[in-house]
Amino acid sequence: MRAALVAVGSELLGPLRTDTNSTWLTERLLDVGVEVVGRATLADEPRLLESALRSAIDTTDVVIITGGLGPTADDLTREAAAAALDRRLVRDSSIVEDLRARFGRFGRKMPAINEKQGDLIEGAVALDNPRGTAPGQRVEHRGRLLILLPGPPSEMKPLFEKHVLPDLRARGRVVRRRVLKIAAMAESQVDEIVAPLYRGVENPRTTILGAPGQIELHLVGEGASGDEAEERIEALARGLRERLPGRIFSEDGRELPAVVGGLLLERALSLAIAESCTGGLLSARLTDVPGASGFLDRSFVTYSNRSKIQELGVDAELLDRAGAVSEEVAAAMADGARRVAETEIGIGITGIAGPEGGTDDKPVGLVFIAVDGAAGTRVQRARFPGWRERVRFQATQVALEMLRRGLLGLEPG
Amino acid sequence: MRAALVAVGSELLGPLRTDTNSTWLTERLLDVGVEVVGRATLADEPRLLESALRSAIDTTDVVIITGGLGPTADDLTREAAAAALDRRLVRDSSIVEDLRARFGRFGRKMPAINEKQGDLIEGAVALDNPRGTAPGQRVEHRGRLLILLPGPPSEMKPLFEKHVLPDLRARGRVVRRRVLKIAAMAESQVDEIVAPLYRGVENPRTTILGAPGQIELHLVGEGASGDEAEERIEALARGLRERLPGRIFSEDGRELPAVVGGLLLERALSLAIAESCTGGLLSARLTDVPGASGFLDRSFVTYSNRSKIQELGVDAELLDRAGAVSEEVAAAMADGARRVAETEIGIGITGIAGPEGGTDDKPVGLVFIAVDGAAGTRVQRARFPGWRERVRFQATQVALEMLRRGLLGLEPG
Repeated sequence: MRAALVAVGSELLGPLRTDTNSTWLTERLLDVGVEVVGRATLADEPRLLESALRSAIDTTDVVIITGGLGPTADDLTREAAAAALDRRLVRDSSIVEDLRARFGRFGRKMPAINEKQGDLIEGAVALDNPRGTAPGQRVEHRGRLLILLPGPPSEMKPLFEKHVLPDLRARGRVVRRRVLKIAAMAESQVDEIVAPLYRGVENPRTTILGAPGQIELHLVGEGASGDEAEERIEALARGLRERLPGRIFSEDGRELPAVVGGLLLERALSLAIAESCTGGLLSARLTDVPGASGFLDRSFVTYSNRSKIQELGVDAELLDRAGAVSEEVAAAMADGARRVAETEIGIGITGIAGPEGGTDDKPVGLVFIAVDGAAGTRVQRARFPGWRERVRFQATQVALEMLRRGLLGLEPG
Repeated sequence: MRAALVAVGSELLGPLRTDTNSTWLTERLLDVGVEVVGRATLADEPRLLESALRSAIDTTDVVIITGGLGPTADDLTREAAAAALDRRLVRDSSIVEDLRARFGRFGRKMPAINEKQGDLIEGAVALDNPRGTAPGQRVEHRGRLLILLPGPPSEMKPLFEKHVLPDLRARGRVVRRRVLKIAAMAESQVDEIVAPLYRGVENPRTTILGAPGQIELHLVGEGASGDEAEERIEALARGLRERLPGRIFSEDGRELPAVVGGLLLERALSLAIAESCTGGLLSARLTDVPGASGFLDRSFVTYSNRSKIQELGVDAELLDRAGAVSEEVAAAMADGARRVAETEIGIGITGIAGPEGGTDDKPVGLVFIAVDGAAGTRVQRARFPGWRERVRFQATQVALEMLRRGLLGLEPG
């Protein structure tokens, strides 16, 4: 089943507030196999609300509206929902009397404005709200379900769990999600390879998400049970792995540094890094992995030529001849880091991150990345589009992917 | 004017991702007097998108859609927006040729699927996107404005600022914004000092925003002219500066690394860094500043004790006696980095980032930060709350703030 969530309240649209109900509801709904396909936050305006609710009811199976059930003039959810269903509002006197009694228990007289909290959409069932004055409502409409809940999370959550969740669980199917991650390939390149496999497949549904240096395939599978949903996902994942051999570095949520760190720890291999244009970013990303001291011995950020010579033993004559941004210097940096630190593996990165420093020969975005190990040295030349931050990040992705492929004995990417 | 924001992408509806574009756009729009009355996040489903867009266009003045402009089969924003306006899509061959040339510059052939990125809604103007393959679109429809922007924030933001904001600003009252940034103080501490000054002041409006290691005061002033709005802001900013002497490190949008980098360049001072628990993060943040080679000579990520001894000349006996996480070792690291690199300033950071490695004596979050210069060595002991990533970031903030205060001759913070 597919659901839309609508949070009502102008105060939720300021830059500082966020609607936390939607995130909570999304998770709860996914647990019972209801997938949220639309989420909206709307100001307290009658025409806006009615139009948006019409659209939501028209295109999804379950619409859950939170907020706007209070007693004041800008609490308009009841009216807007009724209008969207072309139904009337009917005042339920027993709700009004309950409210009046509730006020009485606290020694107060109920203000007249609270009476409208007893208005039910024609055909709706009231959902008792022990924590507040606004009851929820539940109404079926042409096979669709419309649910009105109070806005405060402390009222909404127990009401949802008691009156809404059991009903949905009984109808629903189980949904599972898996994310396949791929480094150092372009989105269109990945899509050309895998689209024939997932296009037209309804279960699991696949979304491809591209970012510089990383592509993600999001697979959402459904089934009568968790196992069935997982089987659906696995069947497609198997095909994707075959078409992208060795390319998928993660199916369990981990990012590339954690995957590479894990491989190094497993194999008890130690690493030293020499970075120029990335300025410590590769080291920072790898040491964000807990336990990084188990594989990273040390890193050098050799920004000046002098430091490349002094720390890594790069040949001054080579720097002169080939230039600091060159295949040879990247290799010498990787070799130097490995030699000085006495580690099994060394990495060297040198390039032009921009925005200044590019030439016709060596444009901004040109980066050389070397991995040096027992089996010798591999150097990759890359040209990254984009600006400084992006060039630097992509360079670290390629370095990590080279290292991963080397550790797994895969062909260079 | 009233606006609706629509973020497109199934991935934004999972429990793991959030749409950050809407928050950013809400603030920017408020600056030019446009109020967001509806915000939606929608899955990549044609009927759902078309219906929601129809509703948005029908009930607001400006509709801004982000995402779904990529080349793949689930990028449906163009089609859905055209359908919602009852218009056709027209392929613009000059956009396609530009795209082809763009791929060519990076030595690649454009895949056929990218051609559809040249599809414009009939009557729309293409908005050039220098950072990505998806151009934006702007179309007027019955007095309403519909704008399509790419989803990645790094592409969306500059495109919005260049092609959308000036147009909207021209229609509204002038609003100016200034952000005052403060490092290494707690939000409640800052608020206690400055709240009496801004509380009750309507113009400018002040919002205090706290994040670990950084507090921001957002001042939004209004006026008939830009000058008038700026004067309003400046009047309050003057008071804030007096109450927080030397504490505000930025009023021009720059972050702390750029401010510190600027000071080092101005004074022609060179820097070397020795990092342990921050693992290269301080170096990475500083080298994200264009021109960093003008002040950073080199950095050492000395994760192992052996590397602290070999690279920085830290005394083995000291490491044994005081422990790697100690005031003395932080000072020796800063001194070592400065001495080895022959720079004017050295920084040393050592601590326990967690989640493992804490003891009663030296708990997770304990960090020593040393700055070593011509005037001697200063060491600060800090205990940061939070998890690994947060501890590391805060440590770099304190290091940068110590350096800034030292360079400006201010009292240690």
